[in-house]
Amino acid sequence: MKDHIIFDRQNLVLRLLDQRLLPCREEYFICEKVDDVVSALKTMVIRGAPAIGVTAAYGCVLSMASVMDKSDWRDRLQIELEKIATARPTAVNLAWAVKKMSNLIAHNKNASAKNILADLIALAEKIHADDIAICKKIGIIGSKCINNGDCILTHCNAGALATSGYGTALGVIRAAFEEGKQISVIADETRPFLQGARLTAWELHQDGIPVRVACDNSAAMLMQKKLVQSVVVGADRIAANGDTANKIGTFGLAILAKHFGIPFYIAAPLSTIDLETATGKEIPIEERPPEEVVCMTGQNITPDGVDVFNFAFDVTSADLISGIITEAGLLLPPFRQSIADAFKRYQEA
Amino acid sequence: MKDHIIFDRQNLVLRLLDQRLLPCREEYFICEKVDDVVSALKTMVIRGAPAIGVTAAYGCVLSMASVMDKSDWRDRLQIELEKIATARPTAVNLAWAVKKMSNLIAHNKNASAKNILADLIALAEKIHADDIAICKKIGIIGSKCINNGDCILTHCNAGALATSGYGTALGVIRAAFEEGKQISVIADETRPFLQGARLTAWELHQDGIPVRVACDNSAAMLMQKKLVQSVVVGADRIAANGDTANKIGTFGLAILAKHFGIPFYIAAPLSTIDLETATGKEIPIEERPPEEVVCMTGQNITPDGVDVFNFAFDVTSADLISGIITEAGLLLPPFRQSIADAFKRYQEA
Repeated sequence: MKDHIIFDRQNLVLRLLDQRLLPCREEYFICEKVDDVVSALKTMVIRGAPAIGVTAAYGCVLSMASVMDKSDWRDRLQIELEKIATARPTAVNLAWAVKKMSNLIAHNKNASAKNILADLIALAEKIHADDIAICKKIGIIGSKCINNGDCILTHCNAGALATSGYGTALGVIRAAFEEGKQISVIADETRPFLQGARLTAWELHQDGIPVRVACDNSAAMLMQKKLVQSVVVGADRIAANGDTANKIGTFGLAILAKHFGIPFYIAAPLSTIDLETATGKEIPIEERPPEEVVCMTGQNITPDGVDVFNFAFDVTSADLISGIITEAGLLLPPFRQSIADAFKRYQEA
Repeated sequence: MKDHIIFDRQNLVLRLLDQRLLPCREEYFICEKVDDVVSALKTMVIRGAPAIGVTAAYGCVLSMASVMDKSDWRDRLQIELEKIATARPTAVNLAWAVKKMSNLIAHNKNASAKNILADLIALAEKIHADDIAICKKIGIIGSKCINNGDCILTHCNAGALATSGYGTALGVIRAAFEEGKQISVIADETRPFLQGARLTAWELHQDGIPVRVACDNSAAMLMQKKLVQSVVVGADRIAANGDTANKIGTFGLAILAKHFGIPFYIAAPLSTIDLETATGKEIPIEERPPEEVVCMTGQNITPDGVDVFNFAFDVTSADLISGIITEAGLLLPPFRQSIADAFKRYQEA
């Protein structure tokens, strides 16, 4: 798959493959100002927690570039960064990336604006590059959970398009496939934005990995027919106890997987784990515009005057999760302990 | 709601409100020949087990009218009726209605074709009228399962549009509402045909019953948030042990309801119970064309070359069902016994 997040450091322009148009059209959305980045995040030109983090980091660069010639640039920048950090509430990678960028600025009290801009560019590019490396690690670690012959059900898109590249849940699938395992994938359609039908199917099909799309409501039947050997999904925020916010529908899948005795894995970088969020109850769940449900490819599907629900995420309780696949290893229950240990190992390394 | 199945006995024409176009357009699909009826059934101009049964009965009338002037009309009719009976495999009401009509013909060996036609018309009109009366009985019986203040989650459309009128699952909801109970409804969107978003929301909104549409994948979260007090759905075929085929997604809802301790009811006439089907394993599950999933309001949502699943129904195991609401009463587990008793009572009455 070609790069979907392209930063032009000469001209300070960020190009994002517009995920709203896939798989029908491949067009790039151009971000020259911080407002373009905020708009891209809010309208889901780009989505997926790690990709949101990388985009936010480049957004901080564009913010800095837009204010650095003012004498009060530090104050102005603060306002800009806040806009980015609050563009979407659930994925913690957004706040994580903005905080990393802010820390760099805060720790360079005496540096010139020009030097700080150069450092911010380098840090954003490092976050971008690190993310791919982390996904590949997650892939290698997670592929041990996949057996030859397995069919893996995944929900939404936790793939190359949701990260800098390679993917988290789809990174696990890619790694298993690259190791020569005979596997196939069922991509949940994932209403209302159809990330599974549009994005996951597109990515895997391009890579030659067998994939079939299923409407979200067919999971129980597919599991009953023994067509699913494991469920692997990504995450938008993992609490310190392992409770995991991910695309709406994930929680239901986890309950079904438990009912059928099928292993259920989360694949995510440590940057998606928020130690400051004790349990899933504290994770803010974004409600998105009703139009995303009501209007399908330009036509209304519900009667005028009827309201809809559009929670973008749900929270899967830790007791339904078989393991969390991170770059620091496969974390097993009890997660409060294994997550704390992973962060300790990671910080010591 | 205006009549959606209209039979003109003077001109022998059947008019069906085209459910593929709702809620955007209200147009009638005209059936003058048996092939029109078969096409209406196959392409889901009309759907819902009881409505399929009524349509099939009128289809038998049109069949008779088309062959009655031939000397070998009995042989020709047999072929026509077989076409109707096999138009769709899962809903048992289709075979049930055709069998009732066939029996009438078989038992009138010496009657003239003209007299048999008149009898068939009368029987089809009786099946049509009985169905509404049965739905109203189901409503009165089922409304006892609904408490003041409840929010009822329903899947697909088991409403007026799925029956002669009033509905089965929506009949229960209508009756509770008419009794003055303060209730509200969550209509599962029901991919791929969107019966919930398009039809259930349309029907209930017209009747002033509070309804909100939710994507199929949000049920677990809505239950977790205690926004759902009971689940009431229809059925396409109920086996003698209570296993129930209904719209794909029903089985998953039943598992979720059990997980959250929420009662899960089936509402259906006895004609949907097939005593000759011992368990759910024997119920044939229709696979429908992939285009229904792939193509949304005229635009493809999956990448070219990617296959999809499109099972139209799933089977909910009897142990997940709190009760089956029929015109013969609320049947409780163990269902093999309560179903047998209901048929006995019904035949004695």
